[in-house]
Amino acid sequence: MSIENILNAESVAIVGATKSETKRGFQAIRTLLDEKFEGKIYPVNPKEKSILGLKCYKKVSDIKDPVDIVLITTPANTIPAILEDCGKKGIHGAVIIAAGFGELGDEGRKKEEEMVEVARKNNIRLIGPNTSGIINMKNNLNLVGLPDVPKGDIALLTQSGNMALTLITEANLKSRKGISYYIGVGNEADIKFHEYLEFFQQDHDTKAILMYVEGMRDGRKFLQQAYKTTLEKPIILLKSGRSSIGKRSAGSHTGALAGMSEVAKGAFERAGIIVIENSDELFPAAETLSSLPPIKNNNVAILADGGGHATIAADLLTDLRINIPVLSEKTQAKLKKILPFTASVPNPVDVAGGTDSNPAIFADCAEIIMKDTNIGGLLIVGLFGGYGIRFAESLALVEEDASHMMGKKVKKYKKPIVLHSLYSAKKPHSLDLLRYYNIPVYDSLDVACKCISLLAEYGDYLGRYHTKAKFIMNWGAKTKSKGEEIINRAKEENRNFLLEYEAKNLIQLHGAPVSHDYLAKTADEVVSIAKNMGGEVVLKIVSPDILHKSDAGGVKLKLRTEDEVRKAFDEIVDNAKRFDEKADIRGILVSPMAKEGVEVIIGTKIDDQFGPIIMFGLGGVLVEILRDVSFRVLPLSQAASKKMLKEIKSFPILDGVRGNPPCDKKALTELMLICSEIVEAYPDIQEMDLNPVIVYESGLNVVDARVILKD
Amino acid sequence: MSIENILNAESVAIVGATKSETKRGFQAIRTLLDEKFEGKIYPVNPKEKSILGLKCYKKVSDIKDPVDIVLITTPANTIPAILEDCGKKGIHGAVIIAAGFGELGDEGRKKEEEMVEVARKNNIRLIGPNTSGIINMKNNLNLVGLPDVPKGDIALLTQSGNMALTLITEANLKSRKGISYYIGVGNEADIKFHEYLEFFQQDHDTKAILMYVEGMRDGRKFLQQAYKTTLEKPIILLKSGRSSIGKRSAGSHTGALAGMSEVAKGAFERAGIIVIENSDELFPAAETLSSLPPIKNNNVAILADGGGHATIAADLLTDLRINIPVLSEKTQAKLKKILPFTASVPNPVDVAGGTDSNPAIFADCAEIIMKDTNIGGLLIVGLFGGYGIRFAESLALVEEDASHMMGKKVKKYKKPIVLHSLYSAKKPHSLDLLRYYNIPVYDSLDVACKCISLLAEYGDYLGRYHTKAKFIMNWGAKTKSKGEEIINRAKEENRNFLLEYEAKNLIQLHGAPVSHDYLAKTADEVVSIAKNMGGEVVLKIVSPDILHKSDAGGVKLKLRTEDEVRKAFDEIVDNAKRFDEKADIRGILVSPMAKEGVEVIIGTKIDDQFGPIIMFGLGGVLVEILRDVSFRVLPLSQAASKKMLKEIKSFPILDGVRGNPPCDKKALTELMLICSEIVEAYPDIQEMDLNPVIVYESGLNVVDARVILKD
Repeated sequence: MSIENILNAESVAIVGATKSETKRGFQAIRTLLDEKFEGKIYPVNPKEKSILGLKCYKKVSDIKDPVDIVLITTPANTIPAILEDCGKKGIHGAVIIAAGFGELGDEGRKKEEEMVEVARKNNIRLIGPNTSGIINMKNNLNLVGLPDVPKGDIALLTQSGNMALTLITEANLKSRKGISYYIGVGNEADIKFHEYLEFFQQDHDTKAILMYVEGMRDGRKFLQQAYKTTLEKPIILLKSGRSSIGKRSAGSHTGALAGMSEVAKGAFERAGIIVIENSDELFPAAETLSSLPPIKNNNVAILADGGGHATIAADLLTDLRINIPVLSEKTQAKLKKILPFTASVPNPVDVAGGTDSNPAIFADCAEIIMKDTNIGGLLIVGLFGGYGIRFAESLALVEEDASHMMGKKVKKYKKPIVLHSLYSAKKPHSLDLLRYYNIPVYDSLDVACKCISLLAEYGDYLGRYHTKAKFIMNWGAKTKSKGEEIINRAKEENRNFLLEYEAKNLIQLHGAPVSHDYLAKTADEVVSIAKNMGGEVVLKIVSPDILHKSDAGGVKLKLRTEDEVRKAFDEIVDNAKRFDEKADIRGILVSPMAKEGVEVIIGTKIDDQFGPIIMFGLGGVLVEILRDVSFRVLPLSQAASKKMLKEIKSFPILDGVRGNPPCDKKALTELMLICSEIVEAYPDIQEMDLNPVIVYESGLNVVDARVILKD
Repeated sequence: MSIENILNAESVAIVGATKSETKRGFQAIRTLLDEKFEGKIYPVNPKEKSILGLKCYKKVSDIKDPVDIVLITTPANTIPAILEDCGKKGIHGAVIIAAGFGELGDEGRKKEEEMVEVARKNNIRLIGPNTSGIINMKNNLNLVGLPDVPKGDIALLTQSGNMALTLITEANLKSRKGISYYIGVGNEADIKFHEYLEFFQQDHDTKAILMYVEGMRDGRKFLQQAYKTTLEKPIILLKSGRSSIGKRSAGSHTGALAGMSEVAKGAFERAGIIVIENSDELFPAAETLSSLPPIKNNNVAILADGGGHATIAADLLTDLRINIPVLSEKTQAKLKKILPFTASVPNPVDVAGGTDSNPAIFADCAEIIMKDTNIGGLLIVGLFGGYGIRFAESLALVEEDASHMMGKKVKKYKKPIVLHSLYSAKKPHSLDLLRYYNIPVYDSLDVACKCISLLAEYGDYLGRYHTKAKFIMNWGAKTKSKGEEIINRAKEENRNFLLEYEAKNLIQLHGAPVSHDYLAKTADEVVSIAKNMGGEVVLKIVSPDILHKSDAGGVKLKLRTEDEVRKAFDEIVDNAKRFDEKADIRGILVSPMAKEGVEVIIGTKIDDQFGPIIMFGLGGVLVEILRDVSFRVLPLSQAASKKMLKEIKSFPILDGVRGNPPCDKKALTELMLICSEIVEAYPDIQEMDLNPVIVYESGLNVVDARVILKD
């Protein structure tokens, strides 16, 4: 049965139906009746004749009429038998409320797998377990037992019933918005996040998808789906379980692999998902993004009736990386004409009392500002909506007029307005009018600023997508077969890693510039190679038994003379023997000492939830301590590789500081794309570290490389 | 007239009184009447006979009875004459609403100074200008024209009328709290922040001071006062104007030196001020801190009725550096007894449906948790207050019972509870009861987490204060007179800086370890000194005309042989001549090349708003780019110097990483205290830079020093 058919079910059996008021088996039926579910309801309880006037059945298979789905509210242990009975009846979808599965640890996980097994055998798809239920607002299929859910265009996809309740309550109290569907995803034992996402992408009544996630079973598939979905409608997501204690709590809650690695945020953002960290912003973000056009140029104007709000808003938007450009001279002149001389018009615009006796001037200012072609969106902050309360009752009607005017301007100029009003909680009619015109209104200045910034973030994403170069795999069959030879040789030796020179050979095959190394067996050979090289050299041990060469005293730098080289050779060999007396020493790698440049690190690994990922950062201990690195899920696009460079805080180093020339960023992004290519080409690679890579004004040099293979 | 007498005025004249409803001169009178001001009101307007039934006077000096203060609502240009008239009448305090002064730039600033001059001459203290007014809730002296202000124990001190309105509206809508006084500080032309603070510290009806600040005229005096005040009552402060555009906006608003330097936050926190960055948290912070005892041990427990809220709360508290320790086994056992088996009890405690049919179990859980001696405070998150709405109406009464119980537990155990409730906005009686017992309730999870964390932050500050070593100046008269000689010599030469060796001599006088340098005049002298030193040496130019030695090619490092030394000497002298052919070359400073260690920078300067401050950071370009430095206002205590080290993100470097030994942190804090001492001892010093200081496992070495004197 498709997910669409489950969510749009026309008949539902409730197993665990009861007359006990505080129980789910009662609330679900009452809500279905109260909310006028358009389909049939079949309570199932062996001990009752009828519940809330509906005939009660002993078991599902006793129901004569066809049944689309079943809601099971009974405890974990009862479920396999119920599913068998549902199979007999030909039901293809089940919503399982019970906790006591994967979230309790290994034993629970086993129980969960067994349940999924029974479901598969009986051709039943499962929502949950450990879910709060599902709601379809179109046919009033409300299996959550929650009344007064507002109908609208936001799809809710959460792993916490309480968070759903929070969001629905907020929608009711503070907006004119509502939901299209609600899914309590629960433990994702069967149906997973990406499957719901695919459905919502196609659903015409859904304009935005709002998600609360604690952990995900298949992050990579989710990303693949999200990447498509966000081009059509925004996904807004709060990921909790960031901290170790949050993980502990989330893990015990959903049983999923909680607290995704730190790559999660970067991966989500790359897929165009709007990632929210503050729960107060979650619903407003969905409200704004489902209501208004995105901002294309990151430029916002602030219109205020008081300096305090204007200043705070300017600080917040700046923190959120929004530009607040000075308005054009023409715009400023027009504003000056209608505002008092004490007003400030560059941007933020502070009307300085100019609206006290006529708040309709807000609408005039808004239009003047929106006409400024350089301005992408408008944030209005302060008292609007409260002039009728604060100054004189009659002004309330003037405000309503202004709301109508502003609402129409949003449509006319196709530019968004977001409004902060101190008086929002007093619910003046003028603010409700703004919401009617899809202008969201917030009583929190922080939330209003965040929301308008998200319109710019989403606009920027959509803009970037269309100019994005497609990633093309450019290795030939020959390169790949040679690379496979290198990897197979290691595997034949039962090694789970490549030796340094093998790793370098591999990446060189794909076009990366590596240091010109020579493998030598004897001291004489080393000396002769060093002489030919000229300048300072580096010696490194080559042994399958020594993975971390420096720790074993297997690296000597800056060797100038023959004496130094011979001494270093002996020391390295001695150290290696001391480190592991049985070490299989393959020789000594002789490399020219690399010129000084900017040291960077590029690493890849296979993440548990997202599959292959890549990391970039500067070299050095300080960067390590400050964790100043950027991540992406592979494969990498050219645009993403450029963004990765800019994302690290120490980016200015790459651009050249204190008289140093800028680094060759093109060579660096090319190297990252090569890494992406290599990871895709050889599924045997578990981890790859190029550390350090030394980058010059022109070109770069991979000085050391490490490749770990899958076991 | 003292500020106390102004704020507690028993009679007030309103200059600019009017019958026009939207004007301040009308609103102020109407509000004084409506709110039943206990004193006398004298409207002043040459054109009116009476306003709102009160006799109107042509000018202030026409009033027969004594008048304490005057509220002036007329434009800027009219004010000097009015103040002269007030002086004649013997009025000693004036509240000035008009804008058009310092906030408009130089011309306005001049106007402001002239007005203050007139006021001084007439013995009148000024509040404002550019203020929204003042309110004293004890005698209902409401000069803001704002009705329905709730009475309570929070003093409001702001530079934005709209922010005051925001905070008062929030108090009304979402709390049982209110204000004792409100002061619109305005441009601080005369009375300044610290003077109000001093008054509020002494006021018994004020339990917390809530501030919104854009810029300050005298930051140092404010800090000195705050340092005393915060030991008696909390100060909660939001400082806006952080960003450059925020500064632009704030500057145009208050006319003060807006956008304090980045030292502000550190300086405020050192004075025990609770600094808020998110405006949504401002009022709640004051509510919580004025209501509940501080948390002494930074340990908080979370009690939740759903995993989602628990997980988000755990993430947020962790971000806020709060510990969420696992509860004692005894506590966990007691919780398990009253909760279902699916509940999670380590901390966060998730009741997992265990309260659905009996929310009074919350109170039982709360008591069990508060008995755990390791727990300093409790955060309850989720649906409490909404069981009567969500599950069954009768449960509302059970919740009320639980509220009474929890309220009493807070008193009994002297530990705070902060509550998040999804249903707060629906205003159930049970939540109002909690507030009656001083348990704050928030509908925002983010705000609730922040508030309980602030109780821990304030508790930590008060705890640290009592163990804080007093800072003792330990230089002798002799040291100081020798130091003054060095400085005077520079001044006699009309230099505004010390030469490197002079700066080093100065700090050495105070006990700092500096490199052992010798000043040489000729190449032969240099060679002979270098030979005596042994090892590698450094040569540096000494010239009053060359402040930045490296830029002028005046530094040569790592010189090994006599040849190298001679060559370097010649090059330095040549470079100096090329840099400035008239350069007065005093000689060449010869120093031993410093051993490798961790490079740090210590700097001091005189900040415009806070006076002498000190900065600490690691050396190197990366630290500069990442701005990873810490600041304090001088003088420095030992405890503060230790904290400064820990505050930088790269602190682990000082502790030793990758096998490096830890740095001598004691020597480092001693050097910082010496810097503090020097800056206090010689008021001539404008800036001092020790850069680099090389720190070893034992001891350190000031390799270069720069001292700039005041002009």
